[in-house]
Amino acid sequence: MDQNLQNKLKKEAGIKAAQLVKDGMVAGLGTGTTVRYLVDELGRRVKEEGLTFTGVTTSRRTAKQAEGYGIKIVDIDDVDHIDLTIDGADQVDKNFNGIKGGGAALLWEKIVAINSRHYVWIVDQSKLADTIGSFPLPVEVIPFGAGHVISRFKAKGYNPVLRLGEDGKPIRTDENDYIVDLHLNRIDHPKELGADLINTVGVVEHGLFLNMVDEVIVGNEGAPKILKNPYKGGAIRE
Amino acid sequence: MDQNLQNKLKKEAGIKAAQLVKDGMVAGLGTGTTVRYLVDELGRRVKEEGLTFTGVTTSRRTAKQAEGYGIKIVDIDDVDHIDLTIDGADQVDKNFNGIKGGGAALLWEKIVAINSRHYVWIVDQSKLADTIGSFPLPVEVIPFGAGHVISRFKAKGYNPVLRLGEDGKPIRTDENDYIVDLHLNRIDHPKELGADLINTVGVVEHGLFLNMVDEVIVGNEGAPKILKNPYKGGAIRE
Repeated sequence: MDQNLQNKLKKEAGIKAAQLVKDGMVAGLGTGTTVRYLVDELGRRVKEEGLTFTGVTTSRRTAKQAEGYGIKIVDIDDVDHIDLTIDGADQVDKNFNGIKGGGAALLWEKIVAINSRHYVWIVDQSKLADTIGSFPLPVEVIPFGAGHVISRFKAKGYNPVLRLGEDGKPIRTDENDYIVDLHLNRIDHPKELGADLINTVGVVEHGLFLNMVDEVIVGNEGAPKILKNPYKGGAIRE
Repeated sequence: MDQNLQNKLKKEAGIKAAQLVKDGMVAGLGTGTTVRYLVDELGRRVKEEGLTFTGVTTSRRTAKQAEGYGIKIVDIDDVDHIDLTIDGADQVDKNFNGIKGGGAALLWEKIVAINSRHYVWIVDQSKLADTIGSFPLPVEVIPFGAGHVISRFKAKGYNPVLRLGEDGKPIRTDENDYIVDLHLNRIDHPKELGADLINTVGVVEHGLFLNMVDEVIVGNEGAPKILKNPYKGGAIRE
């Protein structure tokens, strides 16, 4: 997809989702390029419409952007619950299973998600897929012994690649962990894969978000499309 | 148990286990008061018997102690595998299920354990129990959102207590995480509990080490007793 068009669709989804935030809410704000448009629009609503709400963010980057607009950001442990969280996603299939973590913030994103009463993704249409997996699956791994975790993933055919920064060194997450991207091409059994990953000693969390999202707002040529999850079994309100 | 007697039994187990380390081995060295005696004895063997081996440690504390004896310590990712790891345990049942993490090093301890070909615990006899659980079960938790994890544990009746240091602040592990101790009294279904904990978003690792150990050397009044695990199904050589 053309980059300009993609940005236009991301912005469209972000603006649409900003309407979900109401006065007095505690709103979770995700991370990534699409969320950046959301926060810009929320900033506009705060300034022009007098919207007041409290934010919880999934990364330091988003906190900084939001605070620049005068949005009050609190720590997740300062609130009982989050009314609504809006975040991006790297890929979503038709069963509302998704991959997140392209921006390396998947751990905090998942923690915010499971503490949210309503959970929404904003994506451009290029993120929709029949089967997830062509986007590499990020896994957050403890640096101590990470080489052995990568060897295990290799032996299982997961095609792991340690994510490096521009300086050629492993990037670090907000929790100072590594990200290992699994180049799987397609993930036919996401639940089984997720169980295998979370039971691997040294893995902190993985980027599979399975049946967690309530609705997906898709920036679309024309107008945003809203997909409501009919399978939602309350996984995030365990 | 009398403190002096307990220390004598710990020392006895540590000295016995030190005999398992042979020239040229890569040996994993655990953490805790009993391991301290083990490292003292290994230091003596290095000096008096010319023992040469390479160590991998489960904490910065142990690395410092061993290096003080001139033992070569390398990073876990600098070795293909570990021949033998010797570590302490806080409680062990007759099915070779144990609790570790009293010293807050459970994560690195588990990472070293699963990369070891032979895995040994050294304990004094007070650590043996019919059923584990009277020793509080340590769980390593990401600080971000830890209050919500604790609330979930409370709702499940796990009696969680955030571990504080002498300064009244939460202690931090070598990975900068919190430790939450679960006061369960007895753990009748350790496998199910372990699965529940590891699937809780925000939990990095827990202190249940189930059927991982090959043998347990018990400091005993008289002579050390060696318990060999007949159930060992290769869980650590996955």
